[in-house]
Amino acid sequence: MSRGYGEPVPTRPALILFDVNETLSDMAPLAGRFEDVGAPGGLARTWFASVLRDGVALTAAGASARFAEVADGCLRVALHGVALDRPLDEAVEHVLAGFAELHVHPDVAEGLEALAGLGIRLVTLSNGAASVAEALLGRAGARAHVEACLSVEDAEAAGPWKPAAEAYARALRRCGVRPEEAMLVAVHPWDVDGAARAGLRTAWIDRDGSPYPRHAAEAELTASSLVDLARRLR
Amino acid sequence: MSRGYGEPVPTRPALILFDVNETLSDMAPLAGRFEDVGAPGGLARTWFASVLRDGVALTAAGASARFAEVADGCLRVALHGVALDRPLDEAVEHVLAGFAELHVHPDVAEGLEALAGLGIRLVTLSNGAASVAEALLGRAGARAHVEACLSVEDAEAAGPWKPAAEAYARALRRCGVRPEEAMLVAVHPWDVDGAARAGLRTAWIDRDGSPYPRHAAEAELTASSLVDLARRLR
Repeated sequence: MSRGYGEPVPTRPALILFDVNETLSDMAPLAGRFEDVGAPGGLARTWFASVLRDGVALTAAGASARFAEVADGCLRVALHGVALDRPLDEAVEHVLAGFAELHVHPDVAEGLEALAGLGIRLVTLSNGAASVAEALLGRAGARAHVEACLSVEDAEAAGPWKPAAEAYARALRRCGVRPEEAMLVAVHPWDVDGAARAGLRTAWIDRDGSPYPRHAAEAELTASSLVDLARRLR
Repeated sequence: MSRGYGEPVPTRPALILFDVNETLSDMAPLAGRFEDVGAPGGLARTWFASVLRDGVALTAAGASARFAEVADGCLRVALHGVALDRPLDEAVEHVLAGFAELHVHPDVAEGLEALAGLGIRLVTLSNGAASVAEALLGRAGARAHVEACLSVEDAEAAGPWKPAAEAYARALRRCGVRPEEAMLVAVHPWDVDGAARAGLRTAWIDRDGSPYPRHAAEAELTASSLVDLARRLR
């Protein structure tokens, strides 16, 4: 799956679409937000998987909702039965406010700078709000490397979530780039899979040596960080 | 959302489609399977949410995979980094074998008998293999109340997963029933949502007083058990 020493260097994509949550941001601190309100920290991962499950389910059913709405709804379900230390609404607000304080992984600022230095256009594409990516990159001092922060939702409508082909296609139309000229970069195999099926090139970021599931379409490239990705595309 | 005392009794559907995992089966013992192999029991919920997320993501991307394949792939990801007490393949096998030993919730056998007694045709429709539902109902002595155990997958192909409209439509075509004559019964709001959008009537089973998320289409009926559902449809 990954290209090692001595293998041909892939041609550079004209544009990279970055996933945001977990791919750029380190979501580990959200576990602390759950603990703050009296819930087990491990519930953070269950909750986030359920947000993606429900959001993508709406897309599969031909509907859609905004990320913030699904995150709120799934959080109330996840916290049901937990002995919280404060009223439910306050607990929900405290956990969700954690999104606004997340930071990028240690490799992100250097990796974005290196990729931008290769002349590749860099854009983010999230199922969440564009403002979250804007603020995240701003805190990292890396906003200038990124041409635009896009979302599957906009002011008018929620829109289909990734990995529906239309989610990638809409973003690429806005950038004026054909699918085969673009590369989706994500830590989530389901996102890599959807982008590959939509005709994009793909790179999977595997920071911790996790296995890649066989049910997802393989990534063209596997890299251990954004810095490693820039090295492979040099 | 639910109909209380004094409200009109809904007409009976000709056929009920039951979701299987968690709706009929009590999946709580799977947490013990995780603990058996040295993993936190809470990881069972995270893993199951990730299986649905990845399976539905494939459907949203226009692809599909069998439940067993997605369950295996997501389990290897979930167990990554866990200090297991046995080799990974054996741990995966031990957890997945737990599906074959699950039992129905305490209300299921009586509820199915009561619903069958009302002259309603009863069918299961799972994103998982039909054989799992067959065996589950067999262990409960309730197989005779159910006309057929259907799955979105068959011998030839994996097929689109619920909540895609086509998953419900295929099952109803096999039963010779129109959507408006059928009722989907599930504990999962995303399943209720998809069925409602596909034109079916819906009932949400809420055994533990969980909140219903606002991002999902409301259920026509909410019942606390299958016995309660039979009472409402009497």
